[in-house]
Amino acid sequence: MSERFFLAEPPSHGRGRLVGDEARHLARVMRCRVGDEVVAFDGGGTSWRARVTGIGRDEVALEIGVAMPVPPRPAALLTLAVALPKGERQKWLVEKLTELGVERLVPLMTTRGVAEATPAAIERLGRGVIEACKQCGRDTLMAIGVPQSVADLVGNPAGDPLVIVADRDGEPWSAAVTVARPVVALVGPEGGFTPDELAAVDAAGGRRVSLGMHVLRIETAAIAVASRLA
Amino acid sequence: MSERFFLAEPPSHGRGRLVGDEARHLARVMRCRVGDEVVAFDGGGTSWRARVTGIGRDEVALEIGVAMPVPPRPAALLTLAVALPKGERQKWLVEKLTELGVERLVPLMTTRGVAEATPAAIERLGRGVIEACKQCGRDTLMAIGVPQSVADLVGNPAGDPLVIVADRDGEPWSAAVTVARPVVALVGPEGGFTPDELAAVDAAGGRRVSLGMHVLRIETAAIAVASRLA
Repeated sequence: MSERFFLAEPPSHGRGRLVGDEARHLARVMRCRVGDEVVAFDGGGTSWRARVTGIGRDEVALEIGVAMPVPPRPAALLTLAVALPKGERQKWLVEKLTELGVERLVPLMTTRGVAEATPAAIERLGRGVIEACKQCGRDTLMAIGVPQSVADLVGNPAGDPLVIVADRDGEPWSAAVTVARPVVALVGPEGGFTPDELAAVDAAGGRRVSLGMHVLRIETAAIAVASRLA
Repeated sequence: MSERFFLAEPPSHGRGRLVGDEARHLARVMRCRVGDEVVAFDGGGTSWRARVTGIGRDEVALEIGVAMPVPPRPAALLTLAVALPKGERQKWLVEKLTELGVERLVPLMTTRGVAEATPAAIERLGRGVIEACKQCGRDTLMAIGVPQSVADLVGNPAGDPLVIVADRDGEPWSAAVTVARPVVALVGPEGGFTPDELAAVDAAGGRRVSLGMHVLRIETAAIAVASRLA
């Protein structure tokens, strides 16, 4: 596969430009030259063959060619709402969920959560999504949702989704989950959800689902849900 | 959950001892005292309540109490044969596969593989298994198999397993995989299997199965298989 680069702005009249990290990656790390061919994607589901026409200090100009065939989207859309783990585990979480095709990641604000979804953290997650999309051939960015509490998330969900919550003591997976509807899956912090948080899920008709017999780390549970559904 | 410690030797007459890393973890990191209660597990499927009776320089003596209830084993046993990724990704792979309940990890020696399964690497994998078992409550160690080539692995499998190979162009997952038999799943290197390697899988009746539309990293593909089957 050709190298892939993210277009922060949509192309116009057959022209596009890479800026910021993307321009630096192509110009300095890949040491591109005028005439080189790359693939550009807009994060909205389209990618194009493109050719380098100019190389500036923090900008690379592209001639945008033919749009590439659009692969089919997965049947069911999956929103994963996750109490963010700390440090490197956050980076891993985003990489894997993007590769696996999760539609949207919502940082879940929980009573026992250990990592805050600060604006800097959200920005870092977004950069991780772009990196993973470049690597795995995904043309539609995984959306990073606004951080939400459990009550806010399940209290007002769009599109009548099936709400599930990962719970070691929940019902077995296979009986619980069908993929005919969009799914919103909640993964709590290492310390677990509080009774109030679980009550909010129950009140919204959410189902507690077990992912197996062991105590899964946050990112393992999230990746396991994504592997089964995304 | 109480802290969990791995007994390298089986307990005898109600006594056991922790040595090496496990002794240092309990004595120096956790700063245990005589009389403290912990959980000891033998990696073969049994765990016990235990009490510290003596603390030496590199050894902790335990009085072994009641064996704890044995959780049910998963229905199908999964062997994952994986072309090892490099560096940190190897560590992640082992942690996640252990948490998810994979029975055995076989380092797969492939033509295009990038990481060698040296004795030092195998030992590191084994340490990762113990760490993950301590953390996730798993009492039976994930076995680390002898490194094997594709031809050797699929040419002579024990127990008539279903052999599958992760392949982006393979048949859709759901149609391909039933879990009534033990499964041996192969995950190749980033550069893919060679035609000869794939021919060996085909000759053994193996099935090529797709894990989705994106190009998955080695460890993502392995974790995705484990999430669906282990």
